[in-house]
Amino acid sequence: MKRDLVAIQDLSNAALVGLMDLADTLQRDLRAHARELGGFLMGSLFLEPSTRTRLSFEAAMARLGGRIITSSDPATSSAAKGETLSDTVRIVDSYVDLVVLRHPAAGAARWAARHAGGPVINAGDGAHEHPTQTLCDLYALRRERGKLNDLSVMLYGDLRYGRTTHSLARALVRMGCSIIAVAEDDLGLPDFVVHDLVRQPGCVARHVVVDDMEDVFRRRDVRAVAISSEDTAPAGGETEDDAQPFSLKDRSVDAIYVTRLQAERGAGAPRALPILDHRFLTSQPFKETIVLHPLPRVTEIAAEIDSDPRAAYFRQAALGVPIRMALLMWASGLYDLPLDITPPEEPEPVSGHRCENPSCITRHQGESVPEEVGRMPGDVPRCQWCEEEARPC
Amino acid sequence: MKRDLVAIQDLSNAALVGLMDLADTLQRDLRAHARELGGFLMGSLFLEPSTRTRLSFEAAMARLGGRIITSSDPATSSAAKGETLSDTVRIVDSYVDLVVLRHPAAGAARWAARHAGGPVINAGDGAHEHPTQTLCDLYALRRERGKLNDLSVMLYGDLRYGRTTHSLARALVRMGCSIIAVAEDDLGLPDFVVHDLVRQPGCVARHVVVDDMEDVFRRRDVRAVAISSEDTAPAGGETEDDAQPFSLKDRSVDAIYVTRLQAERGAGAPRALPILDHRFLTSQPFKETIVLHPLPRVTEIAAEIDSDPRAAYFRQAALGVPIRMALLMWASGLYDLPLDITPPEEPEPVSGHRCENPSCITRHQGESVPEEVGRMPGDVPRCQWCEEEARPC
Amino acid sequence: MKRDLVAIQDLSNAALVGLMDLADTLQRDLRAHARELGGFLMGSLFLEPSTRTRLSFEAAMARLGGRIITSSDPATSSAAKGETLSDTVRIVDSYVDLVVLRHPAAGAARWAARHAGGPVINAGDGAHEHPTQTLCDLYALRRERGKLNDLSVMLYGDLRYGRTTHSLARALVRMGCSIIAVAEDDLGLPDFVVHDLVRQPGCVARHVVVDDMEDVFRRRDVRAVAISSEDTAPAGGETEDDAQPFSLKDRSVDAIYVTRLQAERGAGAPRALPILDHRFLTSQPFKETIVLHPLPRVTEIAAEIDSDPRAAYFRQAALGVPIRMALLMWASGLYDLPLDITPPEEPEPVSGHRCENPSCITRHQGESVPEEVGRMPGDVPRCQWCEEEARPC
Repeated sequence: MKRDLVAIQDLSNAALVGLMDLADTLQRDLRAHARELGGFLMGSLFLEPSTRTRLSFEAAMARLGGRIITSSDPATSSAAKGETLSDTVRIVDSYVDLVVLRHPAAGAARWAARHAGGPVINAGDGAHEHPTQTLCDLYALRRERGKLNDLSVMLYGDLRYGRTTHSLARALVRMGCSIIAVAEDDLGLPDFVVHDLVRQPGCVARHVVVDDMEDVFRRRDVRAVAISSEDTAPAGGETEDDAQPFSLKDRSVDAIYVTRLQAERGAGAPRALPILDHRFLTSQPFKETIVLHPLPRVTEIAAEIDSDPRAAYFRQAALGVPIRMALLMWASGLYDLPLDITPPEEPEPVSGHRCENPSCITRHQGESVPEEVGRMPGDVPRCQWCEEEARPC
Repeated sequence: MKRDLVAIQDLSNAALVGLMDLADTLQRDLRAHARELGGFLMGSLFLEPSTRTRLSFEAAMARLGGRIITSSDPATSSAAKGETLSDTVRIVDSYVDLVVLRHPAAGAARWAARHAGGPVINAGDGAHEHPTQTLCDLYALRRERGKLNDLSVMLYGDLRYGRTTHSLARALVRMGCSIIAVAEDDLGLPDFVVHDLVRQPGCVARHVVVDDMEDVFRRRDVRAVAISSEDTAPAGGETEDDAQPFSLKDRSVDAIYVTRLQAERGAGAPRALPILDHRFLTSQPFKETIVLHPLPRVTEIAAEIDSDPRAAYFRQAALGVPIRMALLMWASGLYDLPLDITPPEEPEPVSGHRCENPSCITRHQGESVPEEVGRMPGDVPRCQWCEEEARPC
Repeated sequence: MKRDLVAIQDLSNAALVGLMDLADTLQRDLRAHARELGGFLMGSLFLEPSTRTRLSFEAAMARLGGRIITSSDPATSSAAKGETLSDTVRIVDSYVDLVVLRHPAAGAARWAARHAGGPVINAGDGAHEHPTQTLCDLYALRRERGKLNDLSVMLYGDLRYGRTTHSLARALVRMGCSIIAVAEDDLGLPDFVVHDLVRQPGCVARHVVVDDMEDVFRRRDVRAVAISSEDTAPAGGETEDDAQPFSLKDRSVDAIYVTRLQAERGAGAPRALPILDHRFLTSQPFKETIVLHPLPRVTEIAAEIDSDPRAAYFRQAALGVPIRMALLMWASGLYDLPLDITPPEEPEPVSGHRCENPSCITRHQGESVPEEVGRMPGDVPRCQWCEEEARPC
């Protein structure tokens, strides 16, 4: 089976752990692996602006001794001449041994993977998924906390358009962590992600109003979703409308994962998110909390935090290289993982529905992607590409 | 002699065949040659947007173990600071062992080759030439058809501004193939190309009206030029005005080479070219025709063709890497070809004429290229850089 | 101590000579060093357009067998998402072994070096410094003239905004050369550079009016500053207002260093600088003068000079690769230099002053750089980042 990585669900828990174990080995001396992927060629296809992710992938491949060809400027690319993504991918795939793709449309990576003979790694597809960022986030969490199960993680910031939180939430719940997703009303975790999460055995989602973060948000109603196993779940409501008061006081938060406002993805006019500062970190539930952020940050973490030992975001960024080295070694076939790929479930096709996500690859200019809608547990039909809920048509 | 490749005419037939033989050897295992050009450095200088060609060259060099430095964004280049092409080339040439150049002006590669101490490979100079695309096209034709002589090839699409057809037509005729160039009136093969073709011994060009393509073009009068040796030439007219009716019925077409409308080169407002679809390929003369396209395509080949075994364009794109590997091995001096370079003929200089091609390198902003006009057989003076006909002044 | 190169002053004379000796060895066969920096990874971070400098660095690293990751398009970078330079540098530094940085703000490289664990090489920070260009300039001068002391060098062109002249002037004076800086009134060598120069023991700066260059400038008053040791100094004035007439007649100029108008840095509307042509080079003081230029040139050197053996600028450009190879070998720790780093003097902090340079990194959007003003000899407070004079506030 082709070793694509489109969504974090494509990798089993055992595979995730296997990648992190390999990364631990690699990062002991990053310069010592320059012959591992000699003769191997990676196509770095960034059809949307990016620096960090692209550089991290390219650093990983360079550290392994492989070669790279890069297309990173959408304006000078074939797409600007009217070429479809499927054509571009077919061709670049024929030049190289593995394609790393970033694309503005949700579902683009799954669509690309269908047209490539070699592996396709999703480096971010619109507001959908960014699984290698999640690998990096999980790996940082494991290195900072020593484990990946039984952790309590707060997601915080723009959870609607920040795709990294979508992948991370899925992976954390699967690993047995509990999460609380806190955001301003219109920036909450999307329903299609929450619906996914509660499909895990024993997992419930409760809508709550967090009492003791009013200081931070400077208003009373801080909406949140708490996701955990039945026995540790807070007493919350089934829907946002019957959200119940909830206090963090008696809980300790192992990590807080902050994201910036994704203004370029539809989060509307730029506005300042509440700032994570020293006052925040000295309040009770956060006394031992490490701070993670996929970066770049804008203003949502105050610079005064940088020198706090709990600020783990720069250490986290650095780990992007060894974990991607591990991923590339697996995808290239050089290294095997236990139980590696979880073949994506084939959902029951649903007719009479269509995806209405304007950022879905099915709506992408010039691309003729067949609409495929499938039924999720809970009877929710969703688009097979972008995974947003489909509507009757 | 310096191993430049500016135009496909620079390589003899024997050299073309030699490159393809080498490419056949290389492509058996593309990963097995990573030490061939170790220590060799290529400068990839793309002063006009491109993805495919640049990536193909860079993949070829990477596969051979050489290194690459790339300048691919015209907006951030020295040219944006007002530097001339000749200065840029002189400097980059002094950094590297070989320069690959794409430039918007016709004749730019010949001009650049004069200023470089090392080899210059033309990766496309305006509407003039694109010889490595031609190498790829010929190589695909040979692999699909098993030979390169005695083939009947139809050129189809934008033959005026699609430079790849210019080089291909020259090479095919030289190899002994016959071609029929079919296009809408204002997109036909330019005169300077046709004049070149009929200089081949025994070769004639006839203007014809293709009867049996009216279905495709949805009108009766499809103008075309048929070029072949005297004994197989159709009964056509000397000029467009006395074009004769001509039927493809009793002919079999070995390959059809389709190009997109080059809207960015002066082909005017975007418009849809006739579409090559299943109906087209089931008509009599095309029953065994393979379909080639330099890509990117826009709408001129229907996606329904992609899965047809006669659709060879993706296989063709993939061959761009091994044939460019072969070229780089030759240009670097690592590999010798039989009768390699045909020194370009020194034409008799003509005075009192000047090139009026607004896209010629002689008109390029900031560049002082001496106007050099030479006499072609048939008494046609032409510009020595862009090869368009010169006008009395 | 971390092997940064932020300003040319960071390297002692002995270190400069050591780098050139190493470069002499390397450039005998540029292809013979492809294993020196195997496994080493350079981050090429160009947050301002550049071709030549970036390609030269990347060629140098490629020649040494190291790998490179590149971010060269400001528009697609993290900075475009609102990230600060310090964040960007911290992250890229964590991916690689060494960072090469170009940035539009003066002082950016010093600021970046504070945030990186590995070496930072300044590839140009606004109108402030460009020390590796200076290395290249000095190396070219030594190869052309056989020595670096006791030379007489004319600086000519845009000396106000052309940062390469600032670094070069400092290094030349330190090496014991005398310089005469000739420019139109508003393009003269800035005061903060002149003040630096006269801090060298025995060195004086005299304002003069050069009599015998009126032909070139086509007007009588050509303002200049002549900097040399006391015993060879011309009889000039202390300030521009009491500049004294001065003739080049009895002097021989070993080299003239020409720079283009830096229109993009605030030199105002584009205008033509006086042109260096054959007439210029045949006048008495320039009969044996070699011509250097950091390139790109616009119109300030006539193309007719290119074939003159005294035109050394293309040879100079080529030397950028071996001298940067030497620098990278030192910075990577592979090679030691005698007395390598001169720790920058810790100036006495001055309060009540602030930097008013609008291009200083302290004014750069989104960056919170602490203002640090220090006292120079001569009682001039200057900004510790951009080195411009600070004003009372």
